[in-house]
Amino acid sequence: MIDLRSDTVTRPSADMLAAMAQAELGDDVYGEDPSVTALESEVARRFGREAALFCATGSLSNLLGVWLHTPPGREVLCDSYAHIARAEMGAHGALHGVTMRTWTSRAGRLVADDALAMLAVDCGPYLVETACLAVEDTHNFGGGTVQAFDELARVSEGARAAGVKTHLDGARLPNAMAVNGRTFADYGALFDTVSLCLSKGLGAPVGSVLVGDGDDIARARVQRKRLGAGWRQAGMLAAAGSYALGHNVGRVAEDHTSARLLAEAINAARPGSVVDPETNIVLIPTAQAPAVAAELREAGVLISVLGPTALRAVTHLDVTAEQCTSAGALIASRLR
Amino acid sequence: MIDLRSDTVTRPSADMLAAMAQAELGDDVYGEDPSVTALESEVARRFGREAALFCATGSLSNLLGVWLHTPPGREVLCDSYAHIARAEMGAHGALHGVTMRTWTSRAGRLVADDALAMLAVDCGPYLVETACLAVEDTHNFGGGTVQAFDELARVSEGARAAGVKTHLDGARLPNAMAVNGRTFADYGALFDTVSLCLSKGLGAPVGSVLVGDGDDIARARVQRKRLGAGWRQAGMLAAAGSYALGHNVGRVAEDHTSARLLAEAINAARPGSVVDPETNIVLIPTAQAPAVAAELREAGVLISVLGPTALRAVTHLDVTAEQCTSAGALIASRLR
Amino acid sequence: MIDLRSDTVTRPSADMLAAMAQAELGDDVYGEDPSVTALESEVARRFGREAALFCATGSLSNLLGVWLHTPPGREVLCDSYAHIARAEMGAHGALHGVTMRTWTSRAGRLVADDALAMLAVDCGPYLVETACLAVEDTHNFGGGTVQAFDELARVSEGARAAGVKTHLDGARLPNAMAVNGRTFADYGALFDTVSLCLSKGLGAPVGSVLVGDGDDIARARVQRKRLGAGWRQAGMLAAAGSYALGHNVGRVAEDHTSARLLAEAINAARPGSVVDPETNIVLIPTAQAPAVAAELREAGVLISVLGPTALRAVTHLDVTAEQCTSAGALIASRLR
Amino acid sequence: MIDLRSDTVTRPSADMLAAMAQAELGDDVYGEDPSVTALESEVARRFGREAALFCATGSLSNLLGVWLHTPPGREVLCDSYAHIARAEMGAHGALHGVTMRTWTSRAGRLVADDALAMLAVDCGPYLVETACLAVEDTHNFGGGTVQAFDELARVSEGARAAGVKTHLDGARLPNAMAVNGRTFADYGALFDTVSLCLSKGLGAPVGSVLVGDGDDIARARVQRKRLGAGWRQAGMLAAAGSYALGHNVGRVAEDHTSARLLAEAINAARPGSVVDPETNIVLIPTAQAPAVAAELREAGVLISVLGPTALRAVTHLDVTAEQCTSAGALIASRLR
Repeated sequence: MIDLRSDTVTRPSADMLAAMAQAELGDDVYGEDPSVTALESEVARRFGREAALFCATGSLSNLLGVWLHTPPGREVLCDSYAHIARAEMGAHGALHGVTMRTWTSRAGRLVADDALAMLAVDCGPYLVETACLAVEDTHNFGGGTVQAFDELARVSEGARAAGVKTHLDGARLPNAMAVNGRTFADYGALFDTVSLCLSKGLGAPVGSVLVGDGDDIARARVQRKRLGAGWRQAGMLAAAGSYALGHNVGRVAEDHTSARLLAEAINAARPGSVVDPETNIVLIPTAQAPAVAAELREAGVLISVLGPTALRAVTHLDVTAEQCTSAGALIASRLR
Repeated sequence: MIDLRSDTVTRPSADMLAAMAQAELGDDVYGEDPSVTALESEVARRFGREAALFCATGSLSNLLGVWLHTPPGREVLCDSYAHIARAEMGAHGALHGVTMRTWTSRAGRLVADDALAMLAVDCGPYLVETACLAVEDTHNFGGGTVQAFDELARVSEGARAAGVKTHLDGARLPNAMAVNGRTFADYGALFDTVSLCLSKGLGAPVGSVLVGDGDDIARARVQRKRLGAGWRQAGMLAAAGSYALGHNVGRVAEDHTSARLLAEAINAARPGSVVDPETNIVLIPTAQAPAVAAELREAGVLISVLGPTALRAVTHLDVTAEQCTSAGALIASRLR
Repeated sequence: MIDLRSDTVTRPSADMLAAMAQAELGDDVYGEDPSVTALESEVARRFGREAALFCATGSLSNLLGVWLHTPPGREVLCDSYAHIARAEMGAHGALHGVTMRTWTSRAGRLVADDALAMLAVDCGPYLVETACLAVEDTHNFGGGTVQAFDELARVSEGARAAGVKTHLDGARLPNAMAVNGRTFADYGALFDTVSLCLSKGLGAPVGSVLVGDGDDIARARVQRKRLGAGWRQAGMLAAAGSYALGHNVGRVAEDHTSARLLAEAINAARPGSVVDPETNIVLIPTAQAPAVAAELREAGVLISVLGPTALRAVTHLDVTAEQCTSAGALIASRLR
Repeated sequence: MIDLRSDTVTRPSADMLAAMAQAELGDDVYGEDPSVTALESEVARRFGREAALFCATGSLSNLLGVWLHTPPGREVLCDSYAHIARAEMGAHGALHGVTMRTWTSRAGRLVADDALAMLAVDCGPYLVETACLAVEDTHNFGGGTVQAFDELARVSEGARAAGVKTHLDGARLPNAMAVNGRTFADYGALFDTVSLCLSKGLGAPVGSVLVGDGDDIARARVQRKRLGAGWRQAGMLAAAGSYALGHNVGRVAEDHTSARLLAEAINAARPGSVVDPETNIVLIPTAQAPAVAAELREAGVLISVLGPTALRAVTHLDVTAEQCTSAGALIASRLR
C-alpha cells in the first residue's frame, strides 16, 4: 500500500523510538514532565517566544489559539477554506461560542488587502468587533499553498495597528520554510500565537505545539485541562516531537520533490490534469471522486476524498520518490 | 429633531394606539392570547406558510430561524456584511454554537453563484457541512439594497437541491416588495423560514415575526422560551403589528421617495457624495463620521455612525419628504 | 372558567389600560423610552440600588442576573427545586455555559448553613469555584414558601465574606413582603442583583425588572441585546409595570386569603389533603395528576400539573375569594 | 521524595516500557492503529459491552459520557462532590451546555433513594427533564469511598424504569473491585457508559477508556475529534494501557494496605486524626492545609491540598508500604 491520504500517517523510525524509550517522565498536569518541558522550551526558543504548550492535535492547538484571542460575541476572520473553518468540526463555535467571518481567496493564497478590508473595530457595543485574524501556512485545502511572507507581514502589521490579535495555523509551516528559506523565528515575530504540528511532515506519532506569550500560554494550559486534554506522563510523545524537530525539519523538501514527481506522472498520462504542487499536497480534480478513490485502494494507493469532485494526495517521509511516481501513473489511469 | 438613525424610532399613530387599546389579551406562553394568535395566523397566511411566531425583535427572529436549521458543528453561510453576521452581537455563535462562513458581495447584492459555490455537503463526518444559507433583503449595511428576485430563486433552488435549508432575513422585506412588486407569498415559497420586522418601515412599536413550517415554528416556540422570550399578555403589541400589516405595507414607497430627496439634496450641494438609494437607506461616506454626526445632532438631525468613515440615514413614516430634503442640505454642509 | 394555573394569567384592568394608552414612547435600544426609563428608575429607587433593566420575562431577568456573576467554568449554587434550576429550560447552561450545583431543602425553605456549606472558594485553577449563590423568595415549587429574612441575611453575609456574589429570584417578592412586612430596600441591601416580576401578583401584562449596581446593569443591557431581547418602543408595557407597582403591591395579601380559603375547602372535604399555603400557591398531591387536571378543566377550573402526582393552584387578582372557595370544593371532589 | 499527591504520578515500569516499544502503530483518526483497537476491544470485552474509546484523560471520558446522554437544556444528576461536578472545570456546562443538579451525601456514599428522588421526567416542554444520572466509584473527594453494589443496582434499575441514562465515573473502579470482589462486567451491566482510568491505580502513563453501546461510542468518537482529541499514532500509549490492564488490576489491593498503614501511622501519633481509608485515598483534616503541605514538601512528602482545611494522600504502585508508614509519621508530626 502506498498511503497518500495525509502526512499524518507516518510511523516513528527506529531512532525516534529509541529516543522515546529513553524519555524521562513526570506528571505534566503538575508541569513536571521533563521531556514535555524540554520540548515546549525548545519550540518557544526556535520561534523566539516566551512559552509553548504541547497538545495532542493540531486541531487542539488551533482551538486554543483562537480561543485565547476571541471571546464569545467577537469574531475571528479567516479564509473561507481555512482548516479552522472547514476541518475542525465547528469546534470554535460549538465549544467556545466564537463568531467567524471569512474572506474568499484563490487556492488559499493570502491577499493582505482582502483580509484587512474585513477588520471591524471601534464600532460600538452593538456590532461584532474583530478580535482575531487567522492565517494558514501552508494552506491545506488550497493545495499546500505557501503564503508570500510579505503578505503575512502586511497582515500582521495591519492587524496590530487595529488592535486585532493574530494566529498562524502553522500545521505545515516547515513545508513553507523549505520553500522560502524563512525561519521559525521569522514567523514567531509576526503572530501572537502559532500552532506547529509535529505529526505531519515532521513524522512524530502524536502532537502539536502552540507557541506565544507566557500569559497566553498559561491561560491556554488551563483551558486545555477544561477540554479534557491535560494529559499526565506525556513525555514519551514529547521526546518523539523533540526528535522530529531535531532531525526532520529540513527533509520535508524531499516530500516536495516526491509531490512534483507524482503530479508529473499524472500530467504525463493525462496532460493538464493537476497543477504543479508548491509543497507536499497534490489536489486532483475528477468526476466521481469517491469511486476513483475506491478503485485506487484496490490498486494499492490510498488517497483522500475532499468532496464529490476532488481528491488529495499528500507525500511524507514514509513514501519514496519512486512510490510517488508509480502512484501518479496509477492515479492517472483511473481519473474521469 | 429629524431622527434618521433608523426606521425603528417610529411611534404608534393614534389609530394604531386605538387598535392596541381594544386588543383582546391572554397568556401567550399557553398559546392563549387571541391577538397574538391572530397576528401569527395572518402573517403565515400572507406568506403562504403553515405557522408563525411573534418575537420581540428581529434579532430574535433571525436567531431562531438560523438555530432551527443549524445544529452546533454545522454551518450557516451568509454575506460578510449580513445583519446576522455583523449586527446580532455574535449571538448565533455565542448562544447557539453556530459556525458561520461568509461570502463577499458588492453592496450586499446577492450573486447566487457566489453563494452556492460555498455549499459544503456530503463531505464526511470530519468536515463542516453547510446546514443553512441565509440571505438579507433589503440588505441593511449594503445600503438598503433590493435583491434580484431571480437570484433569490436560484439560491433557493440550488440550496434545496443540495439539501441545505434557507432563511430570509426580511426585516425590511416590504421595502423590497415596494420596489419589485412581489408579494409575501413569493418570498414565502422560496425560503424555509422568513423573519419580518413590524417595527421598522411598518411602524409598530415592538416586534418581528418568524414564519415557516408548523414543526419548525413549534420548535422555535420552545427555544424562544429557553431564551427568556416567552412573554405573557403580548396581545397589545400584536394588535399594533396587525394594524401595521393592514395599513402600512404599501406606504413604505413614500420612504423611498424621501430617501431619494435626501440623497439628491446632499449631491446637489456636494456632487457625487452618495449613491442613489434603492429604498429607504442612504449610506454617506465621510471623514470623521462620529464628529460629523455630533455636529448634525447640534443642528437638529440624528443619524447613525456605522464606522469611522460611514454614516447612515434611514427614512420612515415619522419624517416627511420636506424634512428629508432639509436634512440632506444640513448633512451636505457638514461632510468632509 | 376559574383560571388558577398561574398568577401570570391576569389581564390589565381598565385603569392600567388607560395608563398604558397615555405612555410616552421612544426607542429603548437607544435608552430613549421615557416610560421605560421611569419604570427602571422607580424600581431601582425602591430597592435602594443604582440601576434597573426592564425585561420581557422573569426567566430573562434571572438569566441575566446569574450570567452577570457566573462566567463559564465557575458555578452558581441554588436549591434543587429553584425556578432557575427547574423551570428555565436549562438556559443558564445551554446558552451561557454556567455550571450549577444544588442543595436540598424542605419545601424550598432556605437553611443558610446548608447553602453556605457548599461554597467552594480558593481552591486553585483546576477545581470549580463558586461565583454566585442564588435564592428564590417566595419559593415557587416549594409551594409559595416565604424565606426567613434572618436566613437570607446570613446567606448574604456568608457569601460576601467568601467573595461570592448573590442573586435573588424575587419573582414573587411582594408576596413575601406581604407576609413579613419587609420592604424592597430590605432585600436590595442583601443581594447583588434581584429580579422582580411585574406580571405575576402585580398584574402587569408583560415584564420583569432586574436591579443592581450600575455597572452590572449596563453589562446586562448589552447581553440582553445579544439574547435578541433589546426591544424598541416598550414604553406601553413599562407604563403598565409602573401602574402595577404603584397600585398592586399591597393587595397580594388578598391572594393569600384566597389561597387559604381554597386550601380549607379542599381539606374540609378531604381532611389533610393539602398543607396550609403561606402565600398564593397551593400544592395539591394526588394520584393521576394529569387526569385530575383534565376533569377539572371540564368542570370549569384550570390548574397546573407539576408532575405525575402533583397539582398547583395559584391565586391572583383576577379570581375572587368566592371563586377560590368553590374551586377548592371542585378540586377536592376529583382528588384520588 | 514520597509522592502521595495522586495515583496519576506513577511512571511506566521496565516491562511496560518494553510493551510500548513493541507496539504496532497506525493512524487512529482513521481507526487504523492496531494497538489502540486492541485495547478498546479488550476493555469492551471485559465490561461485556459492544465498544470502547481510548481517551487521553479521565476528564475527557467523563465529558463524552455525560455528553452522549445529556443534550443542552436537559440535566445530569450527580453527587455534589462528584468529580464531574467539582474537578472537571465546569466543562460539561461551559463546552456542552449541560445543566446539572446535585444530591448531598455523606463521604460520597450513594444512597439510591436520594438520587432517584431527584429524577424529573414527563414534566412537559417547559421544565428541565433528567437525561442522565451519574455515579462515581470509588468516590474521590469522599475519600476513596466504595459504593455498595446493591445501591448501584437500585439506582440503575430506577433510572432505567424512568427512561434516564446512566454513566459511571469509574476512574478508580479497580479499587472498588478489589474491595468487593466484583468484575468489570458486573458494572458494565448496570450503566449505559463507564469511564475507566488507566493512569491511576493501573499505572499507565496516559489514558482512560469510555465503554458502552456501539452507537454511543461511534458518536463519542466524532465528538472527541471536535474537542481536538482525535490523536494519530496513539498505539504506544494504548499498549501501555493494555499492559496495565493485563498486570495491574489485582495489585491495587496493595495500595489499600499502604493507605491503611499510612492512616494508622497518623492516628498512632495523633489518635482520631483520620478515618480508616476504604481504598487508596486518605483524607486528612487540618488547620492551615497549604502551610502543612509546604512543610511536608520540605520534609520529603508530597501531598494534595483540597481546600483550606483538607489534605489528601493517595497511595499507588510507585510507593511502598514502608514509605507510606514513614510518610504517615511525618504527616502526623506537622498536623495542627
